[in-house]
Amino acid sequence: MAKKIITISREYGSGGRQIGKLVAEKLGIPYYDRDIVRQVAEESGFSKEFIEKSGEDAPTTSSLLFNIANAAFNQSLIIGTDPLSPTDRVFIAQSNVITKLAEQGPCVIVGRCADYILRDREDCLNVLIHADEDFREKRIVTRYGEDTANVKGTLKQRDERRKVHYKHYTGLTWGLAKNYHVTLDSGLLGVEICADLIVTCVNTANL
Amino acid sequence: MAKKIITISREYGSGGRQIGKLVAEKLGIPYYDRDIVRQVAEESGFSKEFIEKSGEDAPTTSSLLFNIANAAFNQSLIIGTDPLSPTDRVFIAQSNVITKLAEQGPCVIVGRCADYILRDREDCLNVLIHADEDFREKRIVTRYGEDTANVKGTLKQRDERRKVHYKHYTGLTWGLAKNYHVTLDSGLLGVEICADLIVTCVNTANL
Repeated sequence: MAKKIITISREYGSGGRQIGKLVAEKLGIPYYDRDIVRQVAEESGFSKEFIEKSGEDAPTTSSLLFNIANAAFNQSLIIGTDPLSPTDRVFIAQSNVITKLAEQGPCVIVGRCADYILRDREDCLNVLIHADEDFREKRIVTRYGEDTANVKGTLKQRDERRKVHYKHYTGLTWGLAKNYHVTLDSGLLGVEICADLIVTCVNTANL
Repeated sequence: MAKKIITISREYGSGGRQIGKLVAEKLGIPYYDRDIVRQVAEESGFSKEFIEKSGEDAPTTSSLLFNIANAAFNQSLIIGTDPLSPTDRVFIAQSNVITKLAEQGPCVIVGRCADYILRDREDCLNVLIHADEDFREKRIVTRYGEDTANVKGTLKQRDERRKVHYKHYTGLTWGLAKNYHVTLDSGLLGVEICADLIVTCVNTANL
């Protein structure tokens, strides 16, 4: 079965987004990332900021956006109108958007449990990009402007939140090789080579 | 740091051994697998059959070889001569043999926790080969002559035993992508392409 949809899961700071863009360019197919956030916002009514924060990472209890959405949710429980939490609603809207995008044709989808959401399709190549902490720390300092004093804590918290979110919505363990067709260490290989290797895998699977 | 030692961990029936041989041929470097068993037998005094069975999979309690070795071990406990179990002794001998082989120069080492044993070296490329159950079941029936009636049970037991052995001797979770630089689904990609992708990774890391 040809692999038309490439899902790229990634550790925070591993360069997965950049690799996804490169793969889409090399294959001449659309790349979806921020577009998903925009469409989920339209479908769910939540803000883009809230979706960005809760679409693939478990919320921190100190998150203001989470607390506002959650307060509204708790209020709805009292008046008995909504059995779903705000993050459940984001996940459902996200699942609908990703399912529709995949139906439109070949594409690259980065993050947001797309590997799990599209698990019943046989035309997905599922990829995970990861790297060691040193590589990711340097990357989030230089590219995202993270404060060097906080970088270790930020990374640890983001890794933990992604693991918890993935487990909660998929029932699977985050980062197990068997959930992917290919996993690559971008810290060792670099983003360009990772993209080339993924394209080779797509072309091979499509033989 | 150039990657001179390629360790290939693999799920039972995934073709990791065949891929390891191909990688060694393509790179023109030695391939170690059965040789390790022979050298561990020389170093430890255990039979090749016992080492084959306990070198990377946890023993089954119904294993005759395990029971014979264990009876000797229990006897030694009574007379107070040996605080290590037979499988501990195999693991120690195996660690010594693998460490020495890696010191001799570039090579491919298949299985036997080599990724963990050589964790302090910076010149290892650690690879995991896996595949879905259908692919592996067909492979162990056609290549190893496994009875089709037993194949599902055999596979399940081998997967479980490998997971338990790896956890016991490394403290790590078997199959986590972050423990490897590359993981590949040989069922999707085929053994030849897996070997080519690994060679590309070695050449890239050595740039």
